[in-house]
Amino acid sequence: MPTAFAADSVGLVSPQVAHFDEPLALACGRTLPAYELVYETYGTLNAARSNAVLICHALSGHHHAAGYHSEHDRKPGWWDSCIGPGKAIDTNRFFVVALNNLGGCNGSTGPSSANPATGKPYGADFPMVTVEDWVNSQARLADRLGIAQWAAVVGGSLGGMQALQWTISHPERVRHCVAIATAPRLSAQNIAFNEVARQAILSDPEFHGGHFQEQGVIPKRGLMLARMVGHITYLSDDAMGAKFGRDLKNDKLNYDFNSVEFQVESYLRYQGEEFSTRFDANTYLLMTKALDYFDPAQAHGGDLAATLAPAQARFLLMSFTTDWRFSPARSREIVDALVAAGKDVSYLEIEAAQGHDAFLLPIPRYLQAFRGYMNRIAL
Amino acid sequence: MPTAFAADSVGLVSPQVAHFDEPLALACGRTLPAYELVYETYGTLNAARSNAVLICHALSGHHHAAGYHSEHDRKPGWWDSCIGPGKAIDTNRFFVVALNNLGGCNGSTGPSSANPATGKPYGADFPMVTVEDWVNSQARLADRLGIAQWAAVVGGSLGGMQALQWTISHPERVRHCVAIATAPRLSAQNIAFNEVARQAILSDPEFHGGHFQEQGVIPKRGLMLARMVGHITYLSDDAMGAKFGRDLKNDKLNYDFNSVEFQVESYLRYQGEEFSTRFDANTYLLMTKALDYFDPAQAHGGDLAATLAPAQARFLLMSFTTDWRFSPARSREIVDALVAAGKDVSYLEIEAAQGHDAFLLPIPRYLQAFRGYMNRIAL
Repeated sequence: MPTAFAADSVGLVSPQVAHFDEPLALACGRTLPAYELVYETYGTLNAARSNAVLICHALSGHHHAAGYHSEHDRKPGWWDSCIGPGKAIDTNRFFVVALNNLGGCNGSTGPSSANPATGKPYGADFPMVTVEDWVNSQARLADRLGIAQWAAVVGGSLGGMQALQWTISHPERVRHCVAIATAPRLSAQNIAFNEVARQAILSDPEFHGGHFQEQGVIPKRGLMLARMVGHITYLSDDAMGAKFGRDLKNDKLNYDFNSVEFQVESYLRYQGEEFSTRFDANTYLLMTKALDYFDPAQAHGGDLAATLAPAQARFLLMSFTTDWRFSPARSREIVDALVAAGKDVSYLEIEAAQGHDAFLLPIPRYLQAFRGYMNRIAL
Repeated sequence: MPTAFAADSVGLVSPQVAHFDEPLALACGRTLPAYELVYETYGTLNAARSNAVLICHALSGHHHAAGYHSEHDRKPGWWDSCIGPGKAIDTNRFFVVALNNLGGCNGSTGPSSANPATGKPYGADFPMVTVEDWVNSQARLADRLGIAQWAAVVGGSLGGMQALQWTISHPERVRHCVAIATAPRLSAQNIAFNEVARQAILSDPEFHGGHFQEQGVIPKRGLMLARMVGHITYLSDDAMGAKFGRDLKNDKLNYDFNSVEFQVESYLRYQGEEFSTRFDANTYLLMTKALDYFDPAQAHGGDLAATLAPAQARFLLMSFTTDWRFSPARSREIVDALVAAGKDVSYLEIEAAQGHDAFLLPIPRYLQAFRGYMNRIAL
């Protein structure tokens, strides 16, 4: 419980809400008549309005990327290691905007929000949202904040996909794109893991076809399983081995199904349990689908270089050696396409044992390279 | 529907049952008072009783390893590519024994069998069985068949663990050990995937604490999810990519949760569905636990070479380049330990795109090396 915040913390922050009344046409063919986006900002927009950085979140992320909501918060925002005074995304230089995406469960309009057509929660009736839709909704937030062009759009994993999409959908509005631990599209294996997670949720009797909120229940078991399987893919085999190995939970084996034998089982169950109490099942389904659907090159017959040709941004790509969810090879696909398209691209493959999760962690070489790139951005 | 069987098929085969009345003390501390093992044999035991080969099955395997039960069978036994006249395990030379392990759901005593204490199915009351227990029960089957020593004990994956355990538990009874795509113990990641599968089953409301049989239901959703997550780990990322890529099930995207968008989703759902109709949930739990518990070196402070020192067998280890469930590195751990223990060991790492499943597939270089080794076994 920090009574004073560290000098490199953005300190106390408060979420804000932007309401949009213009209908938003979505890739799925449906239209959201109106919606709200909850967001936070850190730092100050300069007079030229040229120092704004957009943070795009990953699967289970949200708008609270840095700082604290209260002095009693045990933990800061999810990317506090990278955002703050003197940090990689230096709030002394940049005006940082972090939002909760449409379809989310942290305040922006999503499945838990009231459907204006019925007055009840959308639940499963919330329309499918894609990375393109998110970028379009983020562009409206930029308009609202008076940001004609981002100094940088930054994200890891699914957030990196949004950063890439920005350079394609709104090329003139992005000067720098920082895409970390991401991929130009999911592989069959990536989709397969998402499908297991979805089936876990969809087949939970407490899911009630996505209208569990009206029944006063949550599909806890399904969400727990979804998170457990996801979590395995976020960690490397090495990292799991180093963290848990075959360490026993108790001194000796129990030889039954109810006991937890190995520490790794206990850890996974805890992760699943904790997640199921704070995340919305319909949002989880939507996020995994947005991942599956992301494939900007499809419109160009699979030619990623042609897809990225309109981009006006400079690019920084970073990947982590033991990330097997979105391996360095997936980042190199993007780098190769950018090079083929004649773009200005920096690429760094960072030696890190932590797997996909590395992008969230304070790994010195990563933070140093990230800070170095961001500090060279002209404002 | 073959009307005549191929020349290299063992043709029509029939399972047999061996009943054992001597109680079997198990590693968990409990005792099975009596039990049955169902098995098949292919080929003929020679007069010297020196040509017997034991096939140990993997997680979802059974005694029906080769040939057909009827002329109408669509498929032969699970390892028909390796067992038959002139095949790697040549039934013109060898007398092959394949059994369903204790705790199985294909005829041997297991959770679906009647518990003599209650007259009802064991269900969740079936005792935990380990690789050591299986080897001990297999030794009794060998006694029954008059086989003092196996020419070879052979298995892939969990079957390979049994083959290794034979050389430790009964060193004088094994001349050759062929352990394919296996590991000396599970990694934390391996255990984590098993734990997800178990939680899927245990949390299914139709599981009824393992006594679903008495309720006339099966935990179909749980088994389906368990198989889906397992299946992903059996295939390589490359193999899934080559087989499915991002191919769509229909011409265009549906943007909903009920439709199947990608072929890989359809494939996985089918695999899970099909498996849930033919496999027992309690057996699945037992098999994953046997995998988790396998760690023969633990009794020697983690020293695998010391563990394998008593072995009298010669060893053939084979692994597959894209197997990420039990990668080549895991086989090399065993090879290194065997070399350190001064054993006679051959090792082959086979270039194969199919991942862990490769050990079941007719990959020319694999079959050739396998056959070459088996043919050099003196009878």
